[in-house]
Amino acid sequence: MMHEADLDPERDLVLVRDLNAPRGLIWRCWTQAEHLREWFVPRPHRVVDCLLDVRVGGACNTTFDVDGTRVENTGVYLDVIPEARLVFTDAYSVGWKPAPDPFMTAIVTFEDLGQGRTRYTAIARHRTIEAARQHRDMGFHDGWGTVATQLEAYAQGLAP
Amino acid sequence: MMHEADLDPERDLVLVRDLNAPRGLIWRCWTQAEHLREWFVPRPHRVVDCLLDVRVGGACNTTFDVDGTRVENTGVYLDVIPEARLVFTDAYSVGWKPAPDPFMTAIVTFEDLGQGRTRYTAIARHRTIEAARQHRDMGFHDGWGTVATQLEAYAQGLAP
Repeated sequence: MMHEADLDPERDLVLVRDLNAPRGLIWRCWTQAEHLREWFVPRPHRVVDCLLDVRVGGACNTTFDVDGTRVENTGVYLDVIPEARLVFTDAYSVGWKPAPDPFMTAIVTFEDLGQGRTRYTAIARHRTIEAARQHRDMGFHDGWGTVATQLEAYAQGLAP
Repeated sequence: MMHEADLDPERDLVLVRDLNAPRGLIWRCWTQAEHLREWFVPRPHRVVDCLLDVRVGGACNTTFDVDGTRVENTGVYLDVIPEARLVFTDAYSVGWKPAPDPFMTAIVTFEDLGQGRTRYTAIARHRTIEAARQHRDMGFHDGWGTVATQLEAYAQGLAP
């Protein structure tokens, strides 16, 4: 669980949403490539490639098609607590190879609210105030909000 | 185990030493604060404070006294495989807070050679070629070599 006190208002961006889907399904959507690719970027953009090795130090790689341009994202998982928390970043690639200029570290938590509902919290942490501002201005809240809606709808269509 | 193929000759610095001390003792020297402080910096410099929370995301904090100047190092463990491998970095502090300008990521491995001997490999990975050069010119090999010798001698004095 992330406590408010842990947040840095100048370097962190936060989205909290209560989703009408059970935590186990939300977890599968986040951790299985064939599911993640269906909701992870705002439509009409698409995930065209995805490699998820969901363990500490494992690959978290995605490739997007954004208006015909391929955008490759290479990263690793820093922490994995099944059905509760994922931490991943572009600051490393597999083998703990540091990236020269990483963009962010994401902490995503899943909390069972009962009755098939899940509190979903996504925190994007940045190295600098400027990077956080840039991410905010790129549309963090709209973008992550849109994909949360896509995630909820896609999870609802999965067999439990 | 780190394979040669994983090394980046331009961004990684490597020290390999076969130590006349058993792996279990070397592991304790690396992971228990009261031991680490006795050998971790080249004498006459000293470790004056040390907090080790040896688990993924746990604190790896040390404070050195270097000719009367306090040098504080704040970091976390990225990966922990008991008696085999430690990965730590100053790229994060506890809570996965990214540092604005991290220096390095260290991968330390311990291999049992039998007869109470241990192959000790320390790899320092850097974000850029320039950072690796700077670390080399600061005296990586002499410094880490000296503390490997201190580590071996200190471990030999511990009860098995």
